[in-house]
Amino acid sequence: MTFSKNISLEEIIQGVEEGKFRLLSRAISLVENGLPESETLLDQIYKNTGKSYRIGITGPPGAGKSTIVSRLVKWFRKSDQKVGVIAVDPTSPFSGGAVLGDRIRMTELMMDEGTFIRSMATRGSLGGLSKTAQEVADLMAAAGIETIIFETVGVGQGELDVAQASDTTVVVLVPESGDSIQAMKAGLMEIADIFVINKSDRDGAEKMKIELEMMLQLRLPKDGWSPPILKCIAQDNMGIDALFEHINMHEEHLKKGGILQKKRSQRLFDRIQEMIRLDLENKFWSQKKTDYLNNKMDDILHRRITPQQIISELQSLKD
Amino acid sequence: MTFSKNISLEEIIQGVEEGKFRLLSRAISLVENGLPESETLLDQIYKNTGKSYRIGITGPPGAGKSTIVSRLVKWFRKSDQKVGVIAVDPTSPFSGGAVLGDRIRMTELMMDEGTFIRSMATRGSLGGLSKTAQEVADLMAAAGIETIIFETVGVGQGELDVAQASDTTVVVLVPESGDSIQAMKAGLMEIADIFVINKSDRDGAEKMKIELEMMLQLRLPKDGWSPPILKCIAQDNMGIDALFEHINMHEEHLKKGGILQKKRSQRLFDRIQEMIRLDLENKFWSQKKTDYLNNKMDDILHRRITPQQIISELQSLKD
Repeated sequence: MTFSKNISLEEIIQGVEEGKFRLLSRAISLVENGLPESETLLDQIYKNTGKSYRIGITGPPGAGKSTIVSRLVKWFRKSDQKVGVIAVDPTSPFSGGAVLGDRIRMTELMMDEGTFIRSMATRGSLGGLSKTAQEVADLMAAAGIETIIFETVGVGQGELDVAQASDTTVVVLVPESGDSIQAMKAGLMEIADIFVINKSDRDGAEKMKIELEMMLQLRLPKDGWSPPILKCIAQDNMGIDALFEHINMHEEHLKKGGILQKKRSQRLFDRIQEMIRLDLENKFWSQKKTDYLNNKMDDILHRRITPQQIISELQSLKD
Repeated sequence: MTFSKNISLEEIIQGVEEGKFRLLSRAISLVENGLPESETLLDQIYKNTGKSYRIGITGPPGAGKSTIVSRLVKWFRKSDQKVGVIAVDPTSPFSGGAVLGDRIRMTELMMDEGTFIRSMATRGSLGGLSKTAQEVADLMAAAGIETIIFETVGVGQGELDVAQASDTTVVVLVPESGDSIQAMKAGLMEIADIFVINKSDRDGAEKMKIELEMMLQLRLPKDGWSPPILKCIAQDNMGIDALFEHINMHEEHLKKGGILQKKRSQRLFDRIQEMIRLDLENKFWSQKKTDYLNNKMDDILHRRITPQQIISELQSLKD
């Protein structure tokens, strides 16, 4: 099997396993585009995907997630770990929509040989955002990347799913009116392992911290862990050291109690269910069934037949 | 079949068809909770679901969508139409997270007999947010509600799906730096039939309008319609009349060219595909298969077997 510039799938797999970022890029494109080779690829590299630690950074737009990510990457790089960033946030500077200061920081990161950055489109990704993001993370892991950071915007369901694909989830908020309440309503309270109040030199930071503490008291600690609430000013590189430490503490905590295994097992379970779902759909929708439905659309639209009736007919149709 | 307080499914269906909002509420709860009766319910009322016009109001958090919705409702009420609001936005005042001024406006709306408001949880909704939102809209339509407004926050995939379930989609932005670019990246440019720049007394409103116009020039008009860009200050009830007019103009436009039928046909097609998907999954996951996968999780987790291999085994398993 050959690709443009005569690179075979075998070469791509070998390249990924040897940690060659240029071939890792190729591999990721195969997966993102849902090409048939991607299944073989993911199957082959699966044995090497267990060693990375995955961190989700999520929160509302404008909370400064990308700045935190870029600062955090440097901390991981100090201990010479390879770091991967997967930006699943359409408003992220990593995805291209940057103001100048951000762009300079991004460029710095991109010049670093131990850092691999990839942004993902949130629309039209084949087979679901969460599935693809996890597959991209697997490829990074197989290429020897030890720390993988997902940057996601914490509003939609898809984004929350990606955050839940992480071992440690950091929720970033800013001290603005109602932000903490919105976080709660958007389901961010339940998924946070660590809270960060960014731009904490602004008015209301301490008030927000107290609000969050009160909300957290109302819920039981998850797996024996109470989410710390950290303040930082990512722009000025303040408080990132504490965030780095708490991520490491959370990792230790998860590893001690066997919780990490349990979490990852649940994640794999969900992934397999999703793969099955996609396969079931592909098999069901033969050309004949698609044509049949298309021909009936007018009857459904004019209420001569109900969707439920059409579904029964499709199900009894022989291909 | 009986429910608490001795209300049968038949009574609920009859109540919906007679436009009784109390029974409509009951019906919506059945659907939201995914109870088995909901299929019969939706099948029975389907014949009466074709007459409502559906409007999506979407945009980033904080753009003032709820204020616009509450103002807009009054315009529709002037012509004595019944109006339904479905808030699929976790940060919406309609969902409970309101500041005082908002809450007063909401209460006013809720006291109006011709207005029916329902907020939907965005997390954990059975069978997908978009599917449920459309079913709720169908119930409203069957109860004689002529205008249905979806309020969604325009960031996640699920929210965009709901917006695409509308006949007319209004994208609300505020004149803040980068908002228009973010809208483009989040896919809002493609789905907008009408743009509203809210809080247009703020700096940058005119600049934003020009930016949007330039972006729109780069794309082909969709079905012969070029999205107008309206300015408003919803708080002060300014510009809502023009928005109301443009929504009506867009409806006229869609009806003239048969475009409305085409759009609705596509929407029904997508819905039927989703119903099929849910059914396929329900049928596949027997207790035996679920148990089988559970027992293999340890092997998958420790990379002794790949997800692809387990999937093959599940597929050949006889129930």
